[in-house]
Formats: sequence, structure tokens, C-alpha cells
Amino acid sequence: MKSRIITLITDFGTADTYAGVMKGVILSINAIAMVVDITHEIAPQDVWGACFALHTAYPWFPKKTIHLVVVDPGVGSERRPLLIETKNYFFIGPDNGVFSAVLAGQGKKSVYKITDSAFLLPEVSATFHGRDVFAPIAAHLAKGIPPSRMGTVVSDYVRLDWPQPMAVKAGTVEGQILHIDRFGNLITNFSRPYVRELTGGSDFYVRYAGKSINQVVPSYAYAKPGQLCSVFGSSNFLEIAVAGGSAAALLKARRGDPVMLLKK
Amino acid sequence: MKSRIITLITDFGTADTYAGVMKGVILSINAIAMVVDITHEIAPQDVWGACFALHTAYPWFPKKTIHLVVVDPGVGSERRPLLIETKNYFFIGPDNGVFSAVLAGQGKKSVYKITDSAFLLPEVSATFHGRDVFAPIAAHLAKGIPPSRMGTVVSDYVRLDWPQPMAVKAGTVEGQILHIDRFGNLITNFSRPYVRELTGGSDFYVRYAGKSINQVVPSYAYAKPGQLCSVFGSSNFLEIAVAGGSAAALLKARRGDPVMLLKK
Amino acid sequence: MKSRIITLITDFGTADTYAGVMKGVILSINAIAMVVDITHEIAPQDVWGACFALHTAYPWFPKKTIHLVVVDPGVGSERRPLLIETKNYFFIGPDNGVFSAVLAGQGKKSVYKITDSAFLLPEVSATFHGRDVFAPIAAHLAKGIPPSRMGTVVSDYVRLDWPQPMAVKAGTVEGQILHIDRFGNLITNFSRPYVRELTGGSDFYVRYAGKSINQVVPSYAYAKPGQLCSVFGSSNFLEIAVAGGSAAALLKARRGDPVMLLKK
Repeated sequence: MKSRIITLITDFGTADTYAGVMKGVILSINAIAMVVDITHEIAPQDVWGACFALHTAYPWFPKKTIHLVVVDPGVGSERRPLLIETKNYFFIGPDNGVFSAVLAGQGKKSVYKITDSAFLLPEVSATFHGRDVFAPIAAHLAKGIPPSRMGTVVSDYVRLDWPQPMAVKAGTVEGQILHIDRFGNLITNFSRPYVRELTGGSDFYVRYAGKSINQVVPSYAYAKPGQLCSVFGSSNFLEIAVAGGSAAALLKARRGDPVMLLKK
Repeated sequence: MKSRIITLITDFGTADTYAGVMKGVILSINAIAMVVDITHEIAPQDVWGACFALHTAYPWFPKKTIHLVVVDPGVGSERRPLLIETKNYFFIGPDNGVFSAVLAGQGKKSVYKITDSAFLLPEVSATFHGRDVFAPIAAHLAKGIPPSRMGTVVSDYVRLDWPQPMAVKAGTVEGQILHIDRFGNLITNFSRPYVRELTGGSDFYVRYAGKSINQVVPSYAYAKPGQLCSVFGSSNFLEIAVAGGSAAALLKARRGDPVMLLKK
Repeated sequence: MKSRIITLITDFGTADTYAGVMKGVILSINAIAMVVDITHEIAPQDVWGACFALHTAYPWFPKKTIHLVVVDPGVGSERRPLLIETKNYFFIGPDNGVFSAVLAGQGKKSVYKITDSAFLLPEVSATFHGRDVFAPIAAHLAKGIPPSRMGTVVSDYVRLDWPQPMAVKAGTVEGQILHIDRFGNLITNFSRPYVRELTGGSDFYVRYAGKSINQVVPSYAYAKPGQLCSVFGSSNFLEIAVAGGSAAALLKARRGDPVMLLKK
């Protein structure tokens, strides 16, 4: 079980050289690795943001891809470095909840605490485990070293709760904005299966920021320019959108804001 | 006619995982593809901006490179997915004018509407054809599938007019700012051959934002720091620049602003 | 002595296509080159910023890596294109001081002025030597062309002084902020060996922006959230940091600001 693809999700940005240094370390250990940037623009130390980004991206990669996530406010403390093996993928990063969505998924998972320093850089700093711990582990894994040689199985890893919609009264549930994307789309935690089950297929509308959003369209282009609408987006969550504009700007939206879903 | 290089021009930004997901899809279909980011920072839904970016970048890549452009405000509507084959390159993206500069070029071109769903993802969403349509087509094309197997030839594709300078009176033409780059250089639509023909090689100057810019220099370093000048830039368009500074900031310039070119 | 890895440090940003065009040129000359972005977010024409970025990144790459740096305010002028060979790496870019930290290092170095136009693009513009000069040289070097075939040895290259801390009175030295990173950490020019020698291992504190920063911690997580602290960071320079926050924002810091180090 071997892969040469290593993806990166970090909060390092692209102005500093931190992400580049990780690539250098990976290629120094494994010259045939293929490093794929998913994003380095997670907000600094935003563990939940990284968890959401990983959730939306990882299943689209080839089997055996190694997903490396370095959003690590606890670097240098007692928080443990993890290596997770699922049926189709590997995940490497700090034990701070960033893998919660992966760990909540179906199927057998083996979770290892990385313990063998033979697979780390010879000198491990207290401030940059992306370079000294996680990148080397990923590079060695991509060379075919089995996870069980790098660490020991643990079960008491950190899990964040994925925010779930809650019924507030008959016919009304409260969800929230999970993510705001570059287009200003507000991605809620109302998944398509959840809405289908809740409404039994009948009509619904959304209330947010004092507005009722009645129009559910298949895609942004079906609404008039400038019009608020809702759409089941590409990750199967209901989004609040403005055709040709930004719902986030129009509604001054913030991640975590409550959103109401109501049966018509 | 086969290539493993697939370039990306999108308006997805790099904070969301959309571009990363496209890379995952490409590599899932074609493990030896080499994905090269040109830019993901096209302004949201800015079809013209993507057209200009493509124009400046595509001829510098190896023959048979596949250029994938996903700036797609009409996603999910009736707008068609296109695959274009020219003498040297392939282009894949929505039929919204983004390929206008390519299609205006010399030489034989075959333009296909993508019709065969066998080369798309099994489930095609209404909101993310970059992932479900265009990335898979590119990946299959890079495996050697001929374009004619993926679609049917069309001739009624969308073409945007490239803005042309216009004579406004004897010795004066009006052009416009096509693009403002990171250095604050204002790239006009006065191409070097156009200016040569217009002026017959005699001197000229530029008027913009109430200022006459008399100095035409070979490169920015030939002007004094802080001085306005004009330069034929790397894409052979006349640029208004400030040595060691930003003409855009100094002149509060905006894309599309008119610029006058006058014979001395 | 051959490598296929070519890293890029530029001030081109990622919204324009300049960096993408360089990749196209490299791959056109050398189809098996692997281009690795370190950063394109050096501030426009910030030679010192590029010098610092290179210093922090280059030693982490495999031996024989070719590091290409294009921050080039003097493009098109008489400033020379350089190719530097050290024991472990190659460096290519303009002779403007960007390689000062490399050239100040130990070990034999050969510095070549690039003179042979056979290894450049056929037409060399005055404004984009990243595309027309530096990318082609890197691509040919990665094919195994020896540096001595591309140019002639020079010794009068530009060197910037790395800012050194200075004693201002007994027990007090003045340093400065070399860099502010994405997390708002203020990276000073007090290196770990320098501080060790200066203080003889005894305690010290830092003064900056009217504040005394007494707590030296092994990593950010050892300070209370919101608390100012100092840390020897991943490049072995002392940093001023705020746990879970931004020291730069809190202290309105700017690169180049003086910072005092005092023995307790």
C-alpha cells in the first residue's frame, strides 16, 4: 500500500517559506513524491477550518493518497502527532481535532501516535513540526514504510463535534454557516439527505439575517443577477448565494452564524 | 498527440479547496498527469480577465499542453462545455467567451462541444463542472483519448470582441487599460506592431488621468524612481508604469479606463 | 551534477501569469523538470525580502536543487544575470544582492555571469528576464549543461550586508526585526548562537515597542493565550510572539524596527 501523492493543507500562507520548506524536506527524503497543494490559506490556527477543508477535498484524490494537515496551535506542547490509516487514505497531522470529520466516517480506521524518531528529522524543533515531524513521516510513508513501524495505536484522540442542525420548533430547524467561500456563498450544515428527510421532499425556505430566501435553484445561473437564492452546492450542503454577486457581502455574514430552515 | 501537462486558470482562489479537488480528480483518472497552476486569482466570474490571462500565458507552454480554464458563471445552465484543438494546444472550459483570444488566432482550429458522458464523473453536479466535467475531460485527453471521441464539432461558440484602439481624430487614438498587474503597471491594448504602424516609427506620447506621459523607456529601470513612463512590456503591449512604484496607485487606475495615444 | 528540481522565489504574485509563464518556459526546454513554488509573494521589488526568504528555505531542499530567484527591479538595465554553484546547490537570478546570504556562507562558491545567449530564449525582452533569461538557464542547467559553459566567472558581484546586532551599552544590544510572518511573529536578527554567546547562558529579556518581554518559552503553546513571549523559532532566530494571536498586530510592528536584548 504505497502512494507518491502527498497533499498539503496548512495555515502557513504562501508569503512565508514554511510550505516550501516542507516540500523540500519531503523531496529530500523521497525524490519521487508528488506534493499537491490543497490550500495554505486556512486562517492562522483555525483547526475547524482545516477540518472542513479536508472534509471537502480528501475523497476526490486517488486511493492511497497521503493527506498532510498542519494547523497546529499546540506545536511543541504535549499534543501528539498522528498518522491515520483508513480504507482508502492516509492522514498525518497533529492530534487537535483536525481529523474529526475523517474519524467520524464509516469503515475501519487505525490511528497511530507517531513514536519512532527514526522517521523524523534528526533535530526536531519546538515550533515547526510540519517540517521536522509531519513532512518526514509523509515522505517515509510514501516510500512504503508501514504505519505500524512508525508509531503505536491509540484510541483517545481528540474529536471535535461536527455542528448538527437542531429542531427548535415544529417545522423549523436551526443550522449554521460552516464556511464562506471565495464567491461569498454561505455554506450551511444542512446536507441534502438531511433536508430531504426533514421535509419529506416538500418545499422549504431559509431565513437568515432577517431575510426569507424562498428560491431554491439547481445552480447560481438560475437566479436573476443580484437575487438571493439557495442551492445545494458541490459538497451537498445547502448554500445561500447571490447570482453574480456575494451573499457574504450583501448579508454581512460570518462563519458560525445561525440559519433557519423552515417548511413551507 | 498526447501530453501530460494540464494547466489551470480559475477564479477559485486558493483559500477554498476547489482547485485542489480538481487536481485530485485529474490524478484519480490519470496518475501521470502534471498539473501546473497558472492562476486561481481571476476575479470571481471575470470571463474577460481569464481570457486575457490565458492569452498571455498559453503560448509559453510545450506543444500539446492542455489548458484548462474554469471561470464559469453559467455553470449548471445551458452553456456548453468546450474542447478546442489548435495546431499546438488543447483548451477545455465553458463556452462563455473565455477562449476568444485563442479562437481569434491564426491556423486551423477544431471546436468540440463535449457530449460523451463516459468521460465525465459518474455524477455531474449543477454547480462544479470544474470538478465533474472539465477536469475529467482534461485527464482523459492527457491519456490520449482523441477529442472527436468526446464530443461533436460546433461553430456557433461564444466570441468576445478583443477591445481595439480607435482613431478619435488625426494623430490621436483611444485605447484602454486591459489589465493592471501586481506591480501596478497599466497594460494597454496598444500593441507594439499597432503603435509602429500608427506612428510610422515617429515619436508618440500617452495621455491618461489628466497626465501626459512623454517618456518611452526600454525597461522600468531606465526611468527615475517615482517617474511615470511608458514601456512595451513582456506581452508586447504598451504599459504605463512608475519606476520603483505603482502607476495604478499613483493614478487611481481601473481596468477599462480609456487611454489616449498621440503623435508628437 | 544534475537535478530536476527547480524552486521559484519571485515577487510576481499569483494573480498575474508571470510565474506560470516561467513554468511553461522551463517545461518547454526540459520536460522532466519539477518546478516547486517556494513563494511568489515577496513584496514588489523587495530584494532584501527575497534574500531572507531564500536564506530560510534553500538548505531544506535536496542536494543539486536549482534555486531560481526573480526579484529584479533592475531588469533590462546593465545589472548582470548570475548563476552560482555552491557545494550543494545552484542559484540563478539577478546580481542585485538577492544571494547575499548564500554568498556569505561557508565553502567554495563559483559565481558566473551568464553570457552565452544560446541558453536564453531566442528573443530576450527588456522587462521579463524571469521568462527570457533565468527560466531557460535553470532548465538547461537541470539538463546537465555545466555552468562554465553558460558564463564566465566574476568576483565583483553585489553583496548586501546582513543586519547584525550591535552593542549599545554594557548588557544591551540592539537588533532589528528581519521579517514578520503570517502569524504575526516578529523574527529578529538575534540568532540562538549569538544570544548564547552574548549572555553566557544566563537570563535575558527583550524590549520592543515600549514593552519588556520577559518570558522565553520553548514554543508558542507554553505562553498563556494573548500573552507576549519570545521564542527561538524554526530558523533559530529569536521571535517575539503572542500565543494564539499576532504580535505584529498587537505591537503595530514593522520590519526593520529596532529591538533591544538585555541581560537580566
